[in-house]
Amino acid sequence: MPKEEFSGSVVRIERLLRHVAFIIKKRGRDILSDFEITTPQFLALVVLKDKPGITMGELCERLFLACSTATDLIDRMEKNGYLDRNRDPEDRRVIRLSITGKGKDIISQVINARRRYVESILAQLTQEEIDQLERSLEKLDALMVAGEV
Amino acid sequence: MPKEEFSGSVVRIERLLRHVAFIIKKRGRDILSDFEITTPQFLALVVLKDKPGITMGELCERLFLACSTATDLIDRMEKNGYLDRNRDPEDRRVIRLSITGKGKDIISQVINARRRYVESILAQLTQEEIDQLERSLEKLDALMVAGEV
Repeated sequence: MPKEEFSGSVVRIERLLRHVAFIIKKRGRDILSDFEITTPQFLALVVLKDKPGITMGELCERLFLACSTATDLIDRMEKNGYLDRNRDPEDRRVIRLSITGKGKDIISQVINARRRYVESILAQLTQEEIDQLERSLEKLDALMVAGEV
Repeated sequence: MPKEEFSGSVVRIERLLRHVAFIIKKRGRDILSDFEITTPQFLALVVLKDKPGITMGELCERLFLACSTATDLIDRMEKNGYLDRNRDPEDRRVIRLSITGKGKDIISQVINARRRYVESILAQLTQEEIDQLERSLEKLDALMVAGEV
């Protein structure tokens, strides 16, 4: 492909991604301000819901957080009743984390609020445009995830 | 359009956007760790570069920050030599901000590093897929921006 065409796409897509990510972050923060959790707590709960019984080490890795930061986060969330910490019966040295009913409840509420926002945006597109957006985001996400490993 | 198809798209696109925004934030933080500025400082410098002579009030608005938070940010950035604060000669009560050469230099370096990352992702797509991604992101961005007003 012509080199200038590719460079132009890189410049424009970098700007678009930066801008879209900024608005998503801002909207996410607005939505969370109606609930009693912070952005890192929300992200940790999403991981805990997907991976019940995850260890602390695995959680830090998935959140790209230093384990000292994640430990403080987990302490606060346990106190607030969003998660339980239990010793692995097979290996008592290992601590396993699991989300509580209260934790599940709060993330469903937050995700529903986020979906209502996305819905209000997508309602302004045709189904073909929506499908195209989904395909593009899927490819982008897969390549970004592969790049993180 | 069929209702279930639309709801399914909403669920999947909300998750994709959340995930893509998370990776962009993480990558952005990794890139900034090589420079001596924080994410809010970087975002403020991008606005200052685009809008020379912006007032404090306008800057808070564009960054969606409380003015007290933005004032601390601006103080630190002025001390670090990234921006200048000047009284408007037409109306001495108004303070206008402008980016310095050092400020411009650091954001070019950061944006170049971000472009190299986006380039490494896009290099794995065809030009048709890249164009489609750009069109989808443009539509999404325009609708999100309209929703912020």
